[in-house]
Order: sequence, then structure tokens, then C-alpha cells
Amino acid sequence: MKAIVLGAGGYTGMLLVRILARHPRVESVVAAARSVAGRPIGEVDPGMSADATARVEPVVRDIAAALREPADVVFSALPHQASAEVVEPAIGRSCVIDLSADFRFRDEALYRRAYDAPRPIASVQDRAVYGLSEWYRAAIRSADVIGNPGCFPSAALLGALPVVRTGRCTGTIVINALSGITGAGKRARVGNLYAERTENMNAYLPGRSHRHAPELVEQLESEDLLFVPHLVPAKQGELATITIPCRDPESAVRAIEERYRDEPFVDVRPGPVQTRYVRGTNMARLGWHIEEGYVIVFAAIDNLWKGAAGQAVQNMNIRFGFDERAGLVREAEL
Amino acid sequence: MKAIVLGAGGYTGMLLVRILARHPRVESVVAAARSVAGRPIGEVDPGMSADATARVEPVVRDIAAALREPADVVFSALPHQASAEVVEPAIGRSCVIDLSADFRFRDEALYRRAYDAPRPIASVQDRAVYGLSEWYRAAIRSADVIGNPGCFPSAALLGALPVVRTGRCTGTIVINALSGITGAGKRARVGNLYAERTENMNAYLPGRSHRHAPELVEQLESEDLLFVPHLVPAKQGELATITIPCRDPESAVRAIEERYRDEPFVDVRPGPVQTRYVRGTNMARLGWHIEEGYVIVFAAIDNLWKGAAGQAVQNMNIRFGFDERAGLVREAEL
Amino acid sequence: MKAIVLGAGGYTGMLLVRILARHPRVESVVAAARSVAGRPIGEVDPGMSADATARVEPVVRDIAAALREPADVVFSALPHQASAEVVEPAIGRSCVIDLSADFRFRDEALYRRAYDAPRPIASVQDRAVYGLSEWYRAAIRSADVIGNPGCFPSAALLGALPVVRTGRCTGTIVINALSGITGAGKRARVGNLYAERTENMNAYLPGRSHRHAPELVEQLESEDLLFVPHLVPAKQGELATITIPCRDPESAVRAIEERYRDEPFVDVRPGPVQTRYVRGTNMARLGWHIEEGYVIVFAAIDNLWKGAAGQAVQNMNIRFGFDERAGLVREAEL
Amino acid sequence: MKAIVLGAGGYTGMLLVRILARHPRVESVVAAARSVAGRPIGEVDPGMSADATARVEPVVRDIAAALREPADVVFSALPHQASAEVVEPAIGRSCVIDLSADFRFRDEALYRRAYDAPRPIASVQDRAVYGLSEWYRAAIRSADVIGNPGCFPSAALLGALPVVRTGRCTGTIVINALSGITGAGKRARVGNLYAERTENMNAYLPGRSHRHAPELVEQLESEDLLFVPHLVPAKQGELATITIPCRDPESAVRAIEERYRDEPFVDVRPGPVQTRYVRGTNMARLGWHIEEGYVIVFAAIDNLWKGAAGQAVQNMNIRFGFDERAGLVREAEL
Repeated sequence: MKAIVLGAGGYTGMLLVRILARHPRVESVVAAARSVAGRPIGEVDPGMSADATARVEPVVRDIAAALREPADVVFSALPHQASAEVVEPAIGRSCVIDLSADFRFRDEALYRRAYDAPRPIASVQDRAVYGLSEWYRAAIRSADVIGNPGCFPSAALLGALPVVRTGRCTGTIVINALSGITGAGKRARVGNLYAERTENMNAYLPGRSHRHAPELVEQLESEDLLFVPHLVPAKQGELATITIPCRDPESAVRAIEERYRDEPFVDVRPGPVQTRYVRGTNMARLGWHIEEGYVIVFAAIDNLWKGAAGQAVQNMNIRFGFDERAGLVREAEL
Repeated sequence: MKAIVLGAGGYTGMLLVRILARHPRVESVVAAARSVAGRPIGEVDPGMSADATARVEPVVRDIAAALREPADVVFSALPHQASAEVVEPAIGRSCVIDLSADFRFRDEALYRRAYDAPRPIASVQDRAVYGLSEWYRAAIRSADVIGNPGCFPSAALLGALPVVRTGRCTGTIVINALSGITGAGKRARVGNLYAERTENMNAYLPGRSHRHAPELVEQLESEDLLFVPHLVPAKQGELATITIPCRDPESAVRAIEERYRDEPFVDVRPGPVQTRYVRGTNMARLGWHIEEGYVIVFAAIDNLWKGAAGQAVQNMNIRFGFDERAGLVREAEL
Repeated sequence: MKAIVLGAGGYTGMLLVRILARHPRVESVVAAARSVAGRPIGEVDPGMSADATARVEPVVRDIAAALREPADVVFSALPHQASAEVVEPAIGRSCVIDLSADFRFRDEALYRRAYDAPRPIASVQDRAVYGLSEWYRAAIRSADVIGNPGCFPSAALLGALPVVRTGRCTGTIVINALSGITGAGKRARVGNLYAERTENMNAYLPGRSHRHAPELVEQLESEDLLFVPHLVPAKQGELATITIPCRDPESAVRAIEERYRDEPFVDVRPGPVQTRYVRGTNMARLGWHIEEGYVIVFAAIDNLWKGAAGQAVQNMNIRFGFDERAGLVREAEL
Repeated sequence: MKAIVLGAGGYTGMLLVRILARHPRVESVVAAARSVAGRPIGEVDPGMSADATARVEPVVRDIAAALREPADVVFSALPHQASAEVVEPAIGRSCVIDLSADFRFRDEALYRRAYDAPRPIASVQDRAVYGLSEWYRAAIRSADVIGNPGCFPSAALLGALPVVRTGRCTGTIVINALSGITGAGKRARVGNLYAERTENMNAYLPGRSHRHAPELVEQLESEDLLFVPHLVPAKQGELATITIPCRDPESAVRAIEERYRDEPFVDVRPGPVQTRYVRGTNMARLGWHIEEGYVIVFAAIDNLWKGAAGQAVQNMNIRFGFDERAGLVREAEL
């Protein structure tokens, strides 16, 4: 099959190209990115293995032209609003997996709250499926448009949904989350410089200020949550610590364990988890701790893998009936 | 005046010696540490300035002998239980500032819960004062024994007490805290190796499992709190994100601002805070964010300064009537 | 085939087990390590994928017993002297790939200079082959014992040999090398703690003091070299900057390029190289720069891969007639 | 006295303002920087202590106007070429300490080689003094214009000059140098992002390609040198490893030790040195190692202190007859 990646110059786009180029079912990958157009992919990403099994053309500048060519799947790692506009012509013709927020929301008002604009291409929104693979697998199988989840929601929802959707949560959920710096993308901003981030940590955009909060609200079907993201000095990795009040925490833990028993990309065990053991993989590691009246769930993912490009390919695998793990089996950092 | 530092081989002990050696009111410092005994201080800590104004002897091995000499103040950075036992002979003769947990608790049961042993030297415990400088200043002025707070409680209590002690808290306080690796001391353990910690993050000892939880319970006068500490890849720095339910969050913020208006080592401003701006200083930076029914307080300190050695010297300054900032004015990391 | 890994508790041993467990030609892996005996491999290395194709038993304590079982290949990641002693019974019966220095030297005196002891098992030394894959491939094909190179020599020799062995070097070679902290192994020493190494750099054991210097002397067939290793704050990665005086630097560069034209694990290009692009791979990236009368060669490897476990498996592939890249094709860090 | 800092928005400029604001002989500091004009200094640099003894005005935008006001000393941390042009009107009226390369060269051709342009303001160049404090102290005392050395030359020359200027060097000097990322300034470039630099290392601009090479050539009075700078994952810190061929290395070491015996900011000891022990200080730590026919000198500085702002203030102290250590006594990172 043929895949197109829009926005191949950023970390997520680069990783998508890498994964697809060695995916057993992909024959060719077209990568498009204005910033690095015209250069062979090995120059844009010198760490890519020379062993790609798929053909990868030099990065193209003309996205519209790229999209006119037939392709089975189009991944967009473009910014929100821009993304929907660009991929629109491909919808219906190709399966579109959008990594921006443009197709994540069922509720217009929540999208507006986060992005201060209407959801783009209203006519298509009803056909879009939220791409949290483990929770929307059935719908993903036949989706034309998949709105791939944000990185923080990927971690937080995997941890919280088994408790919340079984009606166990009795109060305010507090989600504290830590992210490596690639969570902020590859933009050349002073705030992302090595010298500004090494040995430094801080919360940012707490509560409703962060755009991932409305995404959590929609999926948890509740406004009763506090979300506080933090930046820590790491390149990749995301860790959500989720405090959920509930009457019977032991049964909440069993609900989590049972929910993911057969999931290839979710691992549940007692106690805290380290991001290092998911670094460079599509795995989510969940851990848990019980206090009186509370279950504390820990969820570790690699923000670029399960939090972005990895889950996007997982969704492609589901959508096209491939082995869900195809192209995604990896060892973590040592 | 003359100061003795017990346990000068660890990070906290080293920093105590550094600060005291240039303190304008200290003439001599005796440093004791079995692990590095006999070596001049410049070898134990090659980063110490040659400009010490106080005399610092080579590190002594015989702590008991060191303690028999008259000294105005004795700092102990020894482990709990060992610390009380060692400093006992000095109590009454010198002001003892103990950085272990041995003199932090008024409530025997809470100490036991944390350390699984009775509080040592029961006869002295009533004379001990909890050394959170901004909250126990009056008592510190005349204390014989000061139980210097733990690093996490230093940050968390500075943030939470103005809200809690004014009766504003209406439910469970959730404290998520991040710490650099020196929070685990200078022990040579695989878990603290560079290769194990770089680019890695995790929660550890959540809830009641961490020894700082009972210290928080005692000071917040409530069992209704959840404390989850995390390790992040940084050398120094501690950040507590404290979620406090309260009816009137705006008034809670005003209470925080008013409480610290004249404090030399506490700075309050809206929004999140970065640990970088307190790194290498005795400052606590507090920030805040309001959500409906909640105030989220951010508290950043350097765990070795305000969280340990710096606050210990601040307590010495208070106790001996010195300028509270003597020896403690520093610029943060660039 | 069946493989045994001795010393599976360290970073190199862990990585050997990981690679072998998914190697297409390996059916079972026995991992032995006193420090972690009895535990399943997934506990010793929680980042290992669950997708191992080979069977990996719980780590065994009794190395001697492990060695009595028939195996096609035995890897030893034990310390020098101990290593030769332990693997001795397997020599002749299995192919032994030793990652210590015990079988690296042809010259007894050079081994002695480095390790201050005679080469162990003198009777076997003549059958041992130096395992720098690209330079001893023919001999490796039929070797009973392979002495896998040190990490610094792997980088430095790949860069220097094409110039030196073609008689182009006209004076003293200066090798400055940088290494990440795993170069020092997984020992719990204060000097390897995160807090001691972050944001820090230094040379160590310069010149003849480092044990890799005699290894370089033997392979470069010259005492006329200066070797200065440095530690920098990274987990993995090694970079050698090699200054070689020569009459015709352009021809030296051509010699390098031609030498490696068909090598699957060596990549040559003009200019400096970044370790990031070999991180987590078995690749060596060579770069070059010409000054009047000098060629400066840059050689970047991952010290745990091409500098240890990766090259060891490459040698196994050569020895057993497998595709040389089997089990070793990987993408670098993003 | 009154000081002006031009370019106060970068790391060097920020540090200059910090040091001057607490310098015992400075009453007021005017900071100018287009990028951050109009903001109070505490916003530009939130880590600055509130304890400044000098008055620091909000950062001004109009550099020309700032320069029209009388000032005793003007520091320029502007880029080369721009710097000379801007500070020209102040020359003669104030002491100008220029941290760009514009006044570092006596030899027009060497400046041209590095900067591909003529030295600016030719008429003033003869009055400029190279600001390597320990080597040009006498001339600095009466200089109108001081060309503060580059960061790499500061380290490399302190190490090499005692050997070279006493005629001991007998061949090619090889200088391998490592630098933290602030060596590249505060520019928002992708190459300086945290995610690009963490766990990464590389040489860059080797040999004649780096602009500091001609500066070394002029001061070492020889073209016979190879300079290879490297970037390593640290914020601050610079380490030069200098390989000097010489007939009598022992006497070379004695020459180094004697040369710096009374220097307040240079420390000499046998063996390698760690950058950590100079981090945040104006110290240079020199170490040495002898091989047959060679002395290897190690020189560690903090690139922002002794390599830039610290040495600039040291030069101010010399020029105005202050205690040379005024405002510059600091402890290193723990």
C-alpha cells in the first residue's frame, strides 16, 4: 500500500516516515514538508536506517499535488486548522489519519473552548472517529477519518477510562502529567533550547488553559477534573499520575487489569512505572496504587510513539485489517 | 561563632560546610564524616571556594570527640535514628539543628508510622521545634533543638499552609511533587546512576508509602491528603503542585500573598514557576492558578538549599539573632 | 542455535540477551549472572520486548553448570581475568566470544602493560582472533575464540586503520575520545551517580594510563600515539577525534572511503558526525576533515552496540555464516 | 561607577548585568537589548537576586541614546562587526570592554581569515588590548578598548601559553575542546533545541573552519596547531585538552605551575580536571599529564564566566584598580 505523510519535518512526521518505511505492508511513502522539501529523507533524518523496505521519495513541497495522487492512507502531522484544510480533498478517497486536534471532538463547543475556532469541515466531523485504539477499535475499522489523540490524553485516558466508564469515579479526578520536551514539537523557540530546559522543571498551562483539557473532558464525560501538565528535562516520555476517588479501589484496579488483559500495547502491573521502559516503543505501561477511597493510576508512554506516530500506525493497522502490531514491535531504551 | 557539621560527606553536609565557611558570623567550622575523615575539605569538595572566611579543619572521624568541644551550633546531616543518638550529648550545650526526621514530630504515632520505630530521646522531644522557618520563627528563636523539615514538606507546606491554616480547605489535598536526584542523597546505588536516571521519570513511594507523608499530615493537621513524589532527571530542584479544594479560591490566593509579603525567602506570583530560578538559592517561589472550587499552588525550591542546608542556616540565623539572610543571598542558575 | 550469555546483569550483557532473543537464527538464550540470578529476564530488563522469538530462561546463578550444557556460542561479559577462567571449559566445544580483554592481545607484553597480569590460558591465546569485524573477518569465520574489541578501540581503529595500515601516517596520532557513562559499566560507584555526572565533563586516565592504549598500540603497530578519553553527560555514545599526520591527506580520505565502500555497518561522509545518529545501532559513522599535512577522522559509535554487544553478535553472524546484519538492523534515536 | 551593558538579552549579557549589579564598586547598570527592551531586568532574568546593590534600570531599546550618557565602562556583548560600530562613539569617553571579536586581533589578516571582513574602525585597533587577564594585565591597566577573548581561546591559551611562550613547544599543538551549549549563544535554532542536544555529541567546524582558530594562531604565534571544538550535552562548561610536543615535559609543567602561582583565578594541579568544579565561577582549573615527549594540558573553565562575562569584569577590575576578585568570588556547582 501507499502512504502519504504531511508535515514530515517535525518529530512526529519523521517518526511516521521511519515506521512506515519499514512497515511490512507499506510499499511506498510520500513525505511532504515545506521546510525540508526537495531533500532526500536520509538527509532530513540521518538516523533513519538504510534498510527501509518501502520506497521513500525525496520530500515534496507541493502538498496539494502529493494529495492528488492516489494513496491508501494519508497521515497529517500539520497544525490544527491548517491540517483539516489541507487533507480535505483526500477524505473519502484515502483513509485520513489526522494527528492534529481537528477531528478529535464530537462536541463542537469543546473544540471551540480549546482552539478558539469552529471545528473545520463540519460536514465531515460526523464520520471522524477518535483514534484511541484500545477504546474505539470497532469504529476505527471502518473509519474514513481518524482523529488521533493528543499525547497527554493518550496516557491519561488509558489510565482513567477503565475506572470512569465503569461508573466508579466518585469525585474530582486530578491528573498531573510530566512530558519530555518533544511534546512541544521541533519549533525553534528560546523556551525549548537545551540551555533553558536542562536541569529545569515547571508546570505550564494548568487546568483549563491547556488544550488537552477539553479533550479529556469529552472522553471522561465530565467537567470534574483538574489537569496539570509539566515539562521535565527529557527528550521523549510522558507520565500521567491520575488520582481517582472511588468507593472500591480494589475493584477499580481489577477493572483496569481486565480491560487490558489482551491488549498488545498496554501492560498493567502494581506500583509506579518508569518512562524509560516505554521509551522508543508503542507500549503504555500502567501502574496503580491504592489509598483509602482512591486509586492512583500511573500511565507511562513515549509521547512520540503511543502518544502520536506509533498510535497513528496502530490505527492504520486496525483500519486495514493488518496485524495490529505490524511495524510497531520495538525494544525500549536500555 | 563555632559550628560543627556532622555527616559532611553527603550533598547536604557539603553544602552546609560551604555556606558556613563564608557566613559572616561564623569563625570556624568543624566537619565530621566517617567516609571522608582526615582529608582537607577542599579535597572532599573541590568546588568550594578558597575564599572561606571561617576556618575549616580537615574532616574529623571521631564525632564524639568533635562533639565534646564547645560549639555554638551543631548541624547533623546523619540518617534518622543515628542522628539523635549522636547529637544527644550536645543538646543543651549547643543549639542542635538536626536535618534528619528525629526531631520533626510532635506526634509519636506519626513518627512511628514513617520510621517504624519510636522517636529517639523521648525526654528531649518536647523541647524540639519544627524548623519551617516562616511558620515557626518565634519558637525557633529560643529552641535548643530544631528539627529541620524534609525537602518535600518544605515545598509543599509553604504552598499549602496559608490556605489550610486559615480554614479554607474543603476536601482532599493532592500533592504531586517532582524532585531532582540529589533528593535521594549521595548513596552509590544502581538506581541513582547517571545511566539509570537520564531521560527517565517515575513516581515512587506514592501515598502513605513515603516517609514525608506523615510529616505533611502532622503539619496540615489532616489525614485527608494524597502525596505522590516523582523523580525527574535533574540534580537539584523540587517542585510541588498542590491541588487544594476551597470555596473561595481568590481569597485563598490573597491569603498566600499576604502571608509571605515580608518574607525574604518566599516569592509569590501568578502562574506556574520554574525550578531553575531557585536553583542554588534559598528561595521558595510560589505560583498559583485558580479553577472553579480549587486553588492550585506551585512551590519550587532547591531541595539542598531551602529543602535542607539553606533552611538549616536560615534557622541558625533566626536562633542567634543574625540577619535572617546572612550567608544565604545568592543568584540562581542562569 | 543456542547461546549463553555470562554476565547478563550489566548493560552489555543485558543488550546481548535482547539482541539474541530476537535474532532470527537463535532458538534459545541462557543468561547467567550472579547478581540477578533466579529472576526472569523481563524483571532484570523490564524494557525487553515481550516479542522475543528465542526462549530465554530465568537468569541462572551457576555459571559452571550453565557452561556444561551444550551451546553453539558463549558470550562472556565478565571482567578480565575472571572471564578467561570461567569460559575456559567451553573453549573448543562452543565458539567463545569474549567481551573482556582476555583474548584481545597477540603480544603478551602489551596485555601485561594494560592489565598488570599475564594473559590467562596461554595455551589458547594463539587460537584467539581480535574481533574487529571489518578487519579480521576472514579469521573470525573459523575462530574458536574471539576477543571482542574495547569500545574506544572499536571507534578509533575503524577511523585510523585505513590510513595507518596503508603506510600513510607520518608521525604521532592523537586520539581524543568522548564516551557516555555506560562506558564505565553498571557499577554502583559515587563517581557514576547522576548528580556527579550531569552537566560535567573531564578527561580521565590520559595517555598510557588507560587500558585501551596498549590495545591501540598493538593494532596500530606503533607506540607513537596519544590517547585521551573523556567522560561526557550521556548514557550511550562514543566519539573519537583522530588526528593523523600524513603526506597526502586527500589520498588518505580516499583510502578510508574505499576501505568501507561495501561495509554494512560503516558509513563514511565528509565533515564531523553526531553520536545521536548511531545511538542504539551497530553503525559506525566516520567523517573526515583535511588540514595541511593532516587528516582528522571522526568516528562515532554506540559504545554498547558497535563498541560491545552489537559487534559481538556481528562476529557471531560472521562466524556462523549468517547474514552479517541478522538481528542488528535498527534505527537510531530520533 | 556607572556601567553600560549592550546586548543584555543573551546569556553573556545577562550574566554581566548580574555580576555588575552586585559588584561592590558599581552604583548603576544600564542594560540595553533590542529584543527585551522596556522590561525590568527581573523579568528578563528572573533568577537574578533581589539583592542587587547597584541600581538597574529597565532594559532600554535605544542603544545610541544609552551610549550618549556618561558611563565609566561600556561592555558590549553584541555580535562582531555590529559591536564595533555601535560602541565607536563611546571609545575614548568610556573604557570599552568588547566581548565580540572586533578588538581581539593585532593582525588584520587573521581577523579577515576568521570573519571575512576588515577589522572595523581601523583607527582604534592600535589602542585595543587583548583581554586575556593573566597575560596582558599591564596593558589592560591603561587600555581604552579591551578585546575580551573568545571562550575557547581563554581556556586553550591559559593552558598553552606558559609552554609556548617559553619556547618549549617543538611541533604541532593539538587542541581538542569540549563546550556546553551556551557556547552557541541564546539563538532560537533547531540545532540548539533540548531534543537535538541531549545525549548527543559531535565535533564541529574543525581546524581552520572555526573562528577561534586564527585567534589561537595569533596568540600562540604559530600556524602549527590543530583546533577541534566539540559540543556536548551541558549548559555551561568548557574543557580544552591540549597536546604539546616538547623536549622536557617536566620543565614545561614547572613553567605552568610557576606562571600561575599567584594568580587568583588559575589553579594548577596534576591530572585531569572536571568542569563541574569551575561551573558558575571565574576560575580556570589547569591539570597536566606527561607522556614521553609530550605534555598534555587540561584547561577547564565556565564559558560564560572566565570565557566571557567573568573575565570581562576581571578586566574591568584591573583597568580601574579594584581588587581583581571584586564581584567574582563564587563557589562552583555542588
